[in-house]
Amino acid sequence: MKAAVLHGPRDLRVEEREAPRILKPTDAIIRVAVACVCGSDLWPYRGIQPIGAPMPMGHEYCGVIEEVGSDVLALRPGQFVVGSFFASDNVCPVCTYGYPSSCQNAEFVGGAQAPFLRVPLAQGTLVPVSGMPSREMLPGLLATSDVLGTGWFAATAAQVKPGGTVVVVGDGAVGLLGVLSARQLGAERIIAMSRHAERQQLAREFGATDIVAERGDDGVARVMEMTRGLGADSVLECVGTQESMLQAIHCARRGGHVGYVGVPHGVQLDGEALFFEHVHLHGGPAPVRRYLPHLIELVSSGKIDPGKVFDLTLPLDRAAEGYRAMDERRAIKALLLP
Amino acid sequence: MKAAVLHGPRDLRVEEREAPRILKPTDAIIRVAVACVCGSDLWPYRGIQPIGAPMPMGHEYCGVIEEVGSDVLALRPGQFVVGSFFASDNVCPVCTYGYPSSCQNAEFVGGAQAPFLRVPLAQGTLVPVSGMPSREMLPGLLATSDVLGTGWFAATAAQVKPGGTVVVVGDGAVGLLGVLSARQLGAERIIAMSRHAERQQLAREFGATDIVAERGDDGVARVMEMTRGLGADSVLECVGTQESMLQAIHCARRGGHVGYVGVPHGVQLDGEALFFEHVHLHGGPAPVRRYLPHLIELVSSGKIDPGKVFDLTLPLDRAAEGYRAMDERRAIKALLLP
Repeated sequence: MKAAVLHGPRDLRVEEREAPRILKPTDAIIRVAVACVCGSDLWPYRGIQPIGAPMPMGHEYCGVIEEVGSDVLALRPGQFVVGSFFASDNVCPVCTYGYPSSCQNAEFVGGAQAPFLRVPLAQGTLVPVSGMPSREMLPGLLATSDVLGTGWFAATAAQVKPGGTVVVVGDGAVGLLGVLSARQLGAERIIAMSRHAERQQLAREFGATDIVAERGDDGVARVMEMTRGLGADSVLECVGTQESMLQAIHCARRGGHVGYVGVPHGVQLDGEALFFEHVHLHGGPAPVRRYLPHLIELVSSGKIDPGKVFDLTLPLDRAAEGYRAMDERRAIKALLLP
Repeated sequence: MKAAVLHGPRDLRVEEREAPRILKPTDAIIRVAVACVCGSDLWPYRGIQPIGAPMPMGHEYCGVIEEVGSDVLALRPGQFVVGSFFASDNVCPVCTYGYPSSCQNAEFVGGAQAPFLRVPLAQGTLVPVSGMPSREMLPGLLATSDVLGTGWFAATAAQVKPGGTVVVVGDGAVGLLGVLSARQLGAERIIAMSRHAERQQLAREFGATDIVAERGDDGVARVMEMTRGLGADSVLECVGTQESMLQAIHCARRGGHVGYVGVPHGVQLDGEALFFEHVHLHGGPAPVRRYLPHLIELVSSGKIDPGKVFDLTLPLDRAAEGYRAMDERRAIKALLLP
């Protein structure tokens, strides 16, 4: 089969790879319906996160089960399923506490930018969709696999409550779907921080009530003006840099909550400063599996359309164009058709 | 009047100072019944937190109102009251959110190691005790003013829940009262980290079910052994050093909560490491005012006796001995009689 493989900084190739097969009795093989490029794929693509060897790319996926291992009793070939980037057994204590992305048996799922994908711990990881979704529904279902689940976790970690004031730092797909999540969770005021006209527009469609184009200290000052000098109840950090993290913390009110989901790169927090900020901090790899049943239901019933974040669709063999467009911020998120 | 004043590292003098008087109509003057030395007083005493000028010491207090300013309508001379280290108006939005120690009009209350004390924003800050407490009750009421309130906040910030497993890092007065607080909040298992026999004993009296004498990575390894490799639901950080903070974070389970109340000195947190720890972090200057009514009630009704942390009682003019004993860890906490 043809699959996307990263060979080095900005060297993404779609090349022949052996199709995956069942390795353990808990595996499943799925035929990928749609795949996509993640903001986090850009860290190795840009060389910021070095890779040791050529790396098969892609960790967001949905599709039809092709084959299951002998221990997979609750799933059967032909079912349409959604999974997420960490395979999880969904029964260990950590999963039970709601943190499947830190599952005691977690395995990273890689190589989804391909026609076929092996998913370990299939029974814990994959969530079936009832019936066969229409083609129009595929982008939305694919979004639940990572970007929506991650935006949802940011909003949950930031304790978004009905009537609350929310700031979202980051206008990538995760940030935009953080806006959508905050709206779903009942936030009254949602301030999206973005300097890009198209992204501002999508943020508004997803529920943003205000846009702040300034960044850093200027952005914080604007948020303070808008919140009677108090700051926001909830702040979603969806970037992962030192600047964005401090911007998020400084936008929160005393006693407010910061949910951070941007994988931190070079972020250092000063303990004493954080102490006097009086904020709550929670984040990490989003426990997407916890939210999948609810998010799939929201998409399937047409209540939300997170698939709007895909503003570029390409056949898989042109995946490199998708990476380039996202790297240059010409596209929010590229959908790939295997 | 004679009052305790710090002149430089380990140079604590009890010397003549002018008695305080009402400066603003929102002030009150109280006659201090009992005062004490705080673990945080040791930072400047040891020279770790430099002071620019001689500093009147003491920020924990209870006593009888001597005089009130013209705007103080809800309090009257003769009432016995307890306050805390930050004066707060108790009506601003930040106070309303539950963070009086970050009150928009907060003022630090200093100079309580003295017979008389001026308390700003008296009506918001001071909580009356019904009737005149017995002499036996004074240490317990004094403890609510800071160390118990701070231990209580650590437990609350760490989301201690009935049935939960708790680790307390730090066996100073705050840590020990963190144990008591966790017990009051219903924790089932409370692991106190301490190497001192007397403090271990007091921790057990306050409700600790287990003691871990190891520190750092060894201490973390012990906690992991005791929690099926998972870590604790709630961890109270009551020291404020880099080692204690990392120890606390590493003792928490994925999705667990760390409440930190030790003022951080030289603490730096790596964002990426914190991200993958998957913990909740909350702390800061304890919003003691929020808890005072409840804590005073628990003490007044005899349900708890936090005054046991005072293992040394001295007349105020021998305050320097109290500092020395705490500095050398010969005493947990010194009570001073003005």
